[in-house]
Amino acid sequence: MVAVICDVTSMKKGEDFSEWYNEIVELAGLTDKRYPVKGMNVWTPYGWRIMRLIDGYIRENLDSTGHQEVCFPLLIPESEFSKEKDHIKGFDSEVFWVTHAGLNPLDVRLLLRPTSETAMYPMFSVWVRSHADLPLKLYQIVNVFRYETKMTRAFIRVREIHFFESHTCHADEAGAEEQIRENLEILERFSRHLCLPYLLLKRTDWDKFPGAHYTIGIDILLPSGRSLQIGSIHQYLENFSRPYDIRYEDEKGDHKYVHQTTFGMSERLVGSIIAVHGDDKGIILPPDIAPYQAVIVPIPAKGSLEVVNRESEALMEELTRAGIRAHIDSSDLRPGNKFYYWELRGVPLRLELGPRDIEKGVVTAARRDTSERVQIPRDKVAEEIPSILDKISEQMFQRAEQELGKNIVEVGSLNDLPDKMVRLGWCGSEECGREIETATDRNILGTSIEEKDTIHGKKCVVCGKEPASMIYIAKQL
Amino acid sequence: MVAVICDVTSMKKGEDFSEWYNEIVELAGLTDKRYPVKGMNVWTPYGWRIMRLIDGYIRENLDSTGHQEVCFPLLIPESEFSKEKDHIKGFDSEVFWVTHAGLNPLDVRLLLRPTSETAMYPMFSVWVRSHADLPLKLYQIVNVFRYETKMTRAFIRVREIHFFESHTCHADEAGAEEQIRENLEILERFSRHLCLPYLLLKRTDWDKFPGAHYTIGIDILLPSGRSLQIGSIHQYLENFSRPYDIRYEDEKGDHKYVHQTTFGMSERLVGSIIAVHGDDKGIILPPDIAPYQAVIVPIPAKGSLEVVNRESEALMEELTRAGIRAHIDSSDLRPGNKFYYWELRGVPLRLELGPRDIEKGVVTAARRDTSERVQIPRDKVAEEIPSILDKISEQMFQRAEQELGKNIVEVGSLNDLPDKMVRLGWCGSEECGREIETATDRNILGTSIEEKDTIHGKKCVVCGKEPASMIYIAKQL
Repeated sequence: MVAVICDVTSMKKGEDFSEWYNEIVELAGLTDKRYPVKGMNVWTPYGWRIMRLIDGYIRENLDSTGHQEVCFPLLIPESEFSKEKDHIKGFDSEVFWVTHAGLNPLDVRLLLRPTSETAMYPMFSVWVRSHADLPLKLYQIVNVFRYETKMTRAFIRVREIHFFESHTCHADEAGAEEQIRENLEILERFSRHLCLPYLLLKRTDWDKFPGAHYTIGIDILLPSGRSLQIGSIHQYLENFSRPYDIRYEDEKGDHKYVHQTTFGMSERLVGSIIAVHGDDKGIILPPDIAPYQAVIVPIPAKGSLEVVNRESEALMEELTRAGIRAHIDSSDLRPGNKFYYWELRGVPLRLELGPRDIEKGVVTAARRDTSERVQIPRDKVAEEIPSILDKISEQMFQRAEQELGKNIVEVGSLNDLPDKMVRLGWCGSEECGREIETATDRNILGTSIEEKDTIHGKKCVVCGKEPASMIYIAKQL
Repeated sequence: MVAVICDVTSMKKGEDFSEWYNEIVELAGLTDKRYPVKGMNVWTPYGWRIMRLIDGYIRENLDSTGHQEVCFPLLIPESEFSKEKDHIKGFDSEVFWVTHAGLNPLDVRLLLRPTSETAMYPMFSVWVRSHADLPLKLYQIVNVFRYETKMTRAFIRVREIHFFESHTCHADEAGAEEQIRENLEILERFSRHLCLPYLLLKRTDWDKFPGAHYTIGIDILLPSGRSLQIGSIHQYLENFSRPYDIRYEDEKGDHKYVHQTTFGMSERLVGSIIAVHGDDKGIILPPDIAPYQAVIVPIPAKGSLEVVNRESEALMEELTRAGIRAHIDSSDLRPGNKFYYWELRGVPLRLELGPRDIEKGVVTAARRDTSERVQIPRDKVAEEIPSILDKISEQMFQRAEQELGKNIVEVGSLNDLPDKMVRLGWCGSEECGREIETATDRNILGTSIEEKDTIHGKKCVVCGKEPASMIYIAKQL
């Protein structure tokens, strides 16, 4: 709303990541934390536009794989919620309860969905009748509510959370496993748009989702060395279909319970992009989710105002025709201040246009991610800018991937752990696992789902048994 | 989910509109009312797709007029909610209260937004500083919650309501009035996509929105003769900016309260389209909001299965390239059953393709709205179908407009009112207004905002005073 021009270098990302993050999300105009309920923030136009672009890629990927979008009610009756025992136990300390409507108490208390298993599955029970109804693949993009008691943080730990959740039903375990593979493919394609590499770690039994048979956590690594879970994929087997009675008749006329999976990611994606890519000048947005992919800054000199403005408009039109989300900054600020403003807000490409550029028939382009400046022939703009944006996207992903790789180290004992994510051997017993967590004051994130074949020959760092699995541990944010 | 093939003629729209409506919304697969909280229904894939297409036109129209999309928290603290006295009085019997989080009671009760004035305006108070921040034009597309005590009805009277709300701040009343004119233009463009003519009626003082200076109701007329409010536009003047302290500094350095307006419409739009356009065979969707604008029904004869399928696929591809949302029904049903199925679901155009059509180089197209069948040369499909869809859209609007006109009659007394919407003279006093409502058992909807110049020379039907305003009365659904 109000242009923020200030000293954005007051906080250094490398010195105090946490303070830097808190400051940058507000300076960049992504959210407003002054709403009078703790942990419930306002999505400002700029932040919401980013989230909606991310949602667009979710829709594209889920629609093209045969998922259908639905929208279920927010409120869940207590009676439905408590049907799956582990699930209610996992959530009952963190749900919001609606107890009154108008001036009267409700007969049955209603809770705000913390996730929608217990809203959807009573309906699945009615919808699924025969094998011809399977697989059932649905998703919704909604807000969920969790009463976080830890310190809240924009996008990362909030009490109203924007997210998507896909819910599927299959004839058997093989069908559900096939779905999980499809989810992993979707995730891989999707993460490229966000320039966000991640780890897929199968959680321990004591850390899996309440009600799940197993949980794959989708984790990223923050500059502070802490890990952040940005989403998850769950295999439920029949754990929900039995209490919710979701059965189908197979080809032989037998009635069987469906096997279920879920897949979800939240607005933590926005927080992750800020954390992974931002620098001391502000945020850096991946081109695919940037509200503006290029900002045109007219640089008029004496007597050239009219021609510079006219040429800027023409450039804007041409970019728009080429499918680029562009914006002219025609405010009263001086060009230098405009540079700071759009760097803070992470626009991938700044296009400067002054009388000398016009004379030479070029546009000067400055990349936000590398600060590199190049001159583009004016008549090649519509071809070259999309390919520069593609290159930015590719390189942002690569740099983040290298950074992630550098910050995971393998160790053979629990002594003197570096301030990074650590891989080490674990026999698989809960006892040794708990010992690892206590001794290191870190969490076991789980075993990599991609490393199944490479775990042999390692010893458990606690009991020394071999072969051991390779697990990842980190302080979780 | 499950193909519904059944006798859809069990209910006649003309005989019992209400029963017909309740049956058709479920048979057509738009919603599922079996969710275990009364008045909170599930948006099924087909219904949600329609709603999302409608939302798309809202976004297009609001974005192109300089509005910005935001997303505010759902929960509003009781303390903020009660700042505007009329507003809280208008809503306190119909809000849902969150009183507990986890296992503990909350210090301050939170309510689920019934509308977002009281969520947004504390933030507007922080955001608006100077005249340069005005006009502030924001909107959001969210669900709101109202504890309806009357009988619920899908899309029309529900307790979780999908809607959009735009909120604007202006320097003065003239700016706010200008905004209201812009809203009316937006509404006019928007309604064409939905083929939905409407009336703009300025509500009486005792029926305006709680906190508003005046309210323009956006009403349609149902086949039952009842009116249905599908949205509203409100002029607030300073009624909210004073209690919420939303002030700006003008050019002279004086601090002034902003003038505010709101504009909103709900999922009742979906209900209205069903009600206005549907027939005994099912719903009829306007082409612009139909999930499928054309459905291809292959009609294979003996030995022609392969060629018919191949040609159907080719047709599908060509339609998709031409920007038409098309679908091939390749299910096992017989063609006649496919016809019923897609008629029930309101697809505007059915394209039949059999061996004779292929031989003759044509496609047989059947219009859902008129049942008219025409043959289109196969090589003209990509040009002709878009123009047929446009014609359907135009004619659907015209027919609905004629129907609306026919069902509004002017009367000079309160005796023997026809079962239609009625216009009559009213002096403007609350006493006579209340008398009209009591004597007719109908509601005064208000004065037409377009008829300001034509009201003279009428007498009040109660006291006989002239000149009187022309008001509209109807039973409201």
